[in-house]
Amino acid sequence: MTGLAKLLRPQSVAVVGASADPAKTSGRPVGYLRKHGFQGRVYPVNPKASDIDGLRCYPDAQSLPEAPDVAIVLLGAERTQQAVRDLAAIGTGAAIVLASGYSETGEGGARRQRELLEAAGSMRILGPNTIGLVNLTDRIILSASGALEVDQLHSGAIGLVSQSGGILGALLSRAVARGIGFSKLISTSNEVDLDLADFVDALADDPATRVIALYVETIRNPRAFRAAARKAALAGKPIVAFKIGRSESGAQAAASHTGALAGADGMYDALFEEAGIIRAQAFSDLLDIPAALAGERKLRGRRVAILTSTGGAGTLVADCLGVAGFALPAPDARTGEALRALQKGDHAALDRNPIDVTLAGLQPDLLRSAIRIVLESDEYDALVVIVGSSAVAQPELMAGALRDSLALSDKPLMAYISPHAPAAAEMISRFDIPAFYAPESVSAALSAMWKVQARDMHAGTASRPRAAQTPAACNEYGSLDEAQAKALFARFGVQGVREIIVRNEAEAIEAARKLGPRVVLKLLSGKITHKSDVGGVAVNIAAQDIAQRLRQMAQDVRRHTGSEPDAYLVQEMISGAAEVIVGLHKDPLGTAILLGMGGVVAELVRDATLLLLPEDGSALSAEQVEAALRRLKTWPLLNGYRGRERTDVPALVEAVLAFSRMAEALQDQLLEAEINPLFVKPLGQGAYAADGIAVLRDAST
Amino acid sequence: MTGLAKLLRPQSVAVVGASADPAKTSGRPVGYLRKHGFQGRVYPVNPKASDIDGLRCYPDAQSLPEAPDVAIVLLGAERTQQAVRDLAAIGTGAAIVLASGYSETGEGGARRQRELLEAAGSMRILGPNTIGLVNLTDRIILSASGALEVDQLHSGAIGLVSQSGGILGALLSRAVARGIGFSKLISTSNEVDLDLADFVDALADDPATRVIALYVETIRNPRAFRAAARKAALAGKPIVAFKIGRSESGAQAAASHTGALAGADGMYDALFEEAGIIRAQAFSDLLDIPAALAGERKLRGRRVAILTSTGGAGTLVADCLGVAGFALPAPDARTGEALRALQKGDHAALDRNPIDVTLAGLQPDLLRSAIRIVLESDEYDALVVIVGSSAVAQPELMAGALRDSLALSDKPLMAYISPHAPAAAEMISRFDIPAFYAPESVSAALSAMWKVQARDMHAGTASRPRAAQTPAACNEYGSLDEAQAKALFARFGVQGVREIIVRNEAEAIEAARKLGPRVVLKLLSGKITHKSDVGGVAVNIAAQDIAQRLRQMAQDVRRHTGSEPDAYLVQEMISGAAEVIVGLHKDPLGTAILLGMGGVVAELVRDATLLLLPEDGSALSAEQVEAALRRLKTWPLLNGYRGRERTDVPALVEAVLAFSRMAEALQDQLLEAEINPLFVKPLGQGAYAADGIAVLRDAST
Repeated sequence: MTGLAKLLRPQSVAVVGASADPAKTSGRPVGYLRKHGFQGRVYPVNPKASDIDGLRCYPDAQSLPEAPDVAIVLLGAERTQQAVRDLAAIGTGAAIVLASGYSETGEGGARRQRELLEAAGSMRILGPNTIGLVNLTDRIILSASGALEVDQLHSGAIGLVSQSGGILGALLSRAVARGIGFSKLISTSNEVDLDLADFVDALADDPATRVIALYVETIRNPRAFRAAARKAALAGKPIVAFKIGRSESGAQAAASHTGALAGADGMYDALFEEAGIIRAQAFSDLLDIPAALAGERKLRGRRVAILTSTGGAGTLVADCLGVAGFALPAPDARTGEALRALQKGDHAALDRNPIDVTLAGLQPDLLRSAIRIVLESDEYDALVVIVGSSAVAQPELMAGALRDSLALSDKPLMAYISPHAPAAAEMISRFDIPAFYAPESVSAALSAMWKVQARDMHAGTASRPRAAQTPAACNEYGSLDEAQAKALFARFGVQGVREIIVRNEAEAIEAARKLGPRVVLKLLSGKITHKSDVGGVAVNIAAQDIAQRLRQMAQDVRRHTGSEPDAYLVQEMISGAAEVIVGLHKDPLGTAILLGMGGVVAELVRDATLLLLPEDGSALSAEQVEAALRRLKTWPLLNGYRGRERTDVPALVEAVLAFSRMAEALQDQLLEAEINPLFVKPLGQGAYAADGIAVLRDAST
Repeated sequence: MTGLAKLLRPQSVAVVGASADPAKTSGRPVGYLRKHGFQGRVYPVNPKASDIDGLRCYPDAQSLPEAPDVAIVLLGAERTQQAVRDLAAIGTGAAIVLASGYSETGEGGARRQRELLEAAGSMRILGPNTIGLVNLTDRIILSASGALEVDQLHSGAIGLVSQSGGILGALLSRAVARGIGFSKLISTSNEVDLDLADFVDALADDPATRVIALYVETIRNPRAFRAAARKAALAGKPIVAFKIGRSESGAQAAASHTGALAGADGMYDALFEEAGIIRAQAFSDLLDIPAALAGERKLRGRRVAILTSTGGAGTLVADCLGVAGFALPAPDARTGEALRALQKGDHAALDRNPIDVTLAGLQPDLLRSAIRIVLESDEYDALVVIVGSSAVAQPELMAGALRDSLALSDKPLMAYISPHAPAAAEMISRFDIPAFYAPESVSAALSAMWKVQARDMHAGTASRPRAAQTPAACNEYGSLDEAQAKALFARFGVQGVREIIVRNEAEAIEAARKLGPRVVLKLLSGKITHKSDVGGVAVNIAAQDIAQRLRQMAQDVRRHTGSEPDAYLVQEMISGAAEVIVGLHKDPLGTAILLGMGGVVAELVRDATLLLLPEDGSALSAEQVEAALRRLKTWPLLNGYRGRERTDVPALVEAVLAFSRMAEALQDQLLEAEINPLFVKPLGQGAYAADGIAVLRDAST
């Protein structure tokens, strides 16, 4: 059994630095282990005590009767290192190190953390600075979190991995109050050894876990993380992540526009998108969405019924669902009639949605029947029941009616709790019916269910051809000029506009005659990136005007830069095409292709998206590229907006795939690359790189 | 005393249809009145009972010993009308009608509602379909809401007006649990008589109310509402509104683009903006933001300190504040030193923000000192204290430390509750310190405080000249052609591009020579709105080509419309200018000017804003127009983005003011108007209408 497997399900646990005082943090773990029902062997280790809580206490690791599967180390940082060395020496499977004072405190702490890793040898470490691990499936509490003071801990199907121990405790505390159960909770914190990726991988294998929730501060090992996320996806376990660090603006100074458009947080969006991870937008979503996904019900469509006995709250939830794109059709004739047959002579609104069944909250049989009728209707894919004020005094009536309805249908069933009714909310959640206090949570949960379902439906349809296996070498290096950059792109299949390099007026006239009637004239230089800033771009020039225009450009460039250009580019003039920017974005998280609409307005509204390149040996598929393009707000411009001609999206997709093949083939040799603009002509007429940047590292160094 | 004043603070209350059974809704009001401490006279009215709860019961209104200030009518809709007539006859001040079955149920109900209003005569009506009114300031409960079952109701400074009774009950129930207090709660529901505007007006006068919270489904009387909101603003009482109906997409079919860009919900944004109302984005904000504004502390800047003893939650709140644009500077040297002097030898992070004071939650003296040091620092404008797990078991320690800190400073002080700790949250809120469970609530609350402060700082600086008092008549009517429309705009001060109407090739050549070297040619018609769709626009034409181009246009238009144009426009060709759209948007809520960047990308990303015209006799100010322009994401295009020339914003603002003067002068006579595009040239060179639409009603009809 590996150290990680032992950590998740130990038979024996040493508690190093255990205290007999339950008021101290170090007094908690032994008590928690026993209170919550650990069946294995517990060894308190403390040279100053002979027994703790009736258990024999050992002076040090060497005195233990066996090598424990897990040791919880409760000592301060200064004594932890020796304890870890001793535990490793006797063959302990894994140590959970609670001490703080490591990398989170600066350089001295980082050094101490490296020494800790050395001391551990082949023993696995969780932490340091962790609050530990809680295995609720098997009732094994390896933690000192105050949130475990509660008497009853219900297990569930949510596996939580948090990079913050405090957040783990807060989520556990809130979940207990809400009736939401976890399978495992792990605080990885400083991640000197075991990290997010290890536990996502382990939870993908854990039969008790149906959904994985992540509280992410940073992803230290993106490659392993992405592999673990793929494994979870293949196991059919959705991942929901809340990521902080959104406010670090990623306006890096870069030669290209790609950096500014991408942003630091945008790469996390791209990574989550590629890995099929649902990003929780609000902190509360990190409990609410997993609670909805933990049930095994599938949302097969977007038509939602709302059943209410209090008009206001039904409308409120309906409004949130409408904003999120759900449909709320009125009951069809048969359903409406069946509902009307339940009640007589009152003014309840049974022919609209929200469906208002007045007083049903006090009449559980009526409520049960109404739920049954709505669940049986083919008009609806899910049902949200509004829990009103009657549930404050009589929580069991509504909760019981909902529980009894579970067997009637496999459609998603959830509850919105309108007043403060904690007992009702907890009871309903315990029955595995998601119960929410915020109307926005209802729509976030249903949206996540729909996303999971849509992904499942498309799984397998996207063919993912293998990427080229061996990186291609490239003889150029340094900052290429525009013509060289586009020639490089062309080698991988990106077509460029027709162009001719010229060095003087005579060559320019000849080139303009070939490429005309009207052409573009640009200076050609590997050094000047923003050509138009120095007067180095002129468009819409007739052949007869080009000599004069070239002379003027030479003067303008000399005025701005101190010297005249050696060479110019004469290009065909393309008009009536859409302009797209395609860029390479390299980031610690991975390599991504940035796609955005050209032009200053699109830039100002940051209408761009990042598409992470796969790292599993496959290449981007055309479907992935088109899906990314459809995420652009300006996608309609490519797709025939307001009677415009549809553009050649297949050619655009092919150009993006060619650009990504280049990124995959050249790998680390390609430092920067950007096509801006790529002209996308009407359907059937192709897509052409009109300008480009490429910066290469010398492959031989 | 007016009926409304009596309703808010009655000396005597009749309860018509009171039941002796407290389990029934009709059994609640008499009990609630007495339980919560009403000092006035209570008269149950019920022909079937002789006394209720020890009070003498009257058979009907006529038998009452006096005309009550208020009557709560608990009867069904069918008996309510007669009861209302009887109550009006004896001179009752106001009736609260709980019955449902009125306008919310369709046409029959709407008729019944009109009859109810007639029956009331001069007696004021709250409802029907209302849950009533709760005056917590004076402990007068005029409601049957189940949320009033609680034993203790604390009063506070938030006045709530809700168009839904169920939502009122839910908010009251949640607020009680959170320790948040109200001054008055009013459910207006169907608003047959008294509406939102009446109560906003009344709460603006109410000394116990410092902030007004609104749950809005629709604003039935926008003019009165805006006047009431102005009154509240002048009284220094912020209004926070949550508005549903966001999902009714407002894509109306209209001759202009203005309609599509405006949207139904956009007008509410414009109205709230104009009235200085803070729009709650999430439902929970409707409690959280008023709770923060109810204190009288002012946020004087955007520098926030976070004090925590649990790292994770501090970082989480910091991230939300960063996203919302707040700064979190590290403590300066003096503050850091003072903080370090509190503790010794541990690893608490005292030189960063969040400021981590380890274990402070268990050491109230240490916490008190840390709070004092941070509040005294000039580096910070507000302090957020993170409440960790120690508050679960010992809520009074943290709550007490916070309460004691209130006197130290007038800076905003608030708490974020990390675990589930309801007792701590309630206790802290009771001390008038806002306490939040969601990190997003902290940033929403501080953002709202900043908005209130920014508005207060600017109040009075914007000069609001009087509008023209008498509407100007206009001789034209119907759908004007482009030249007529721009001539109309010009009469109010909007400059147009230079242009000449021509009817044949010879006139076109002459016009092109005058306006050239290059010109624009357009068909001129009051009937064809989308000229380019029928081939009726040609740009960048040289004088020598215009005759041929005109012939081609004649053919194209004939092909599309069946007939050739009678007239054409030759216009000067303007290039290098920014293009702006200025439109008129008429709506039940008021008349607004739509401002947006021209071009298809701006249209796709809906980068437009609505600016409501004042209704208090003042005109728009230049400051208001410029503030609206700055709300556009594409504002940098006007303001010198990336080395571009700054555009003539003063001329643009003047054109918008001229356009708004036209709207004010012509009032209902002007049905539609739009300038699209308005060319805004570089600074000092002006702004010119290049195309326009105007539709006028015949003033004589």
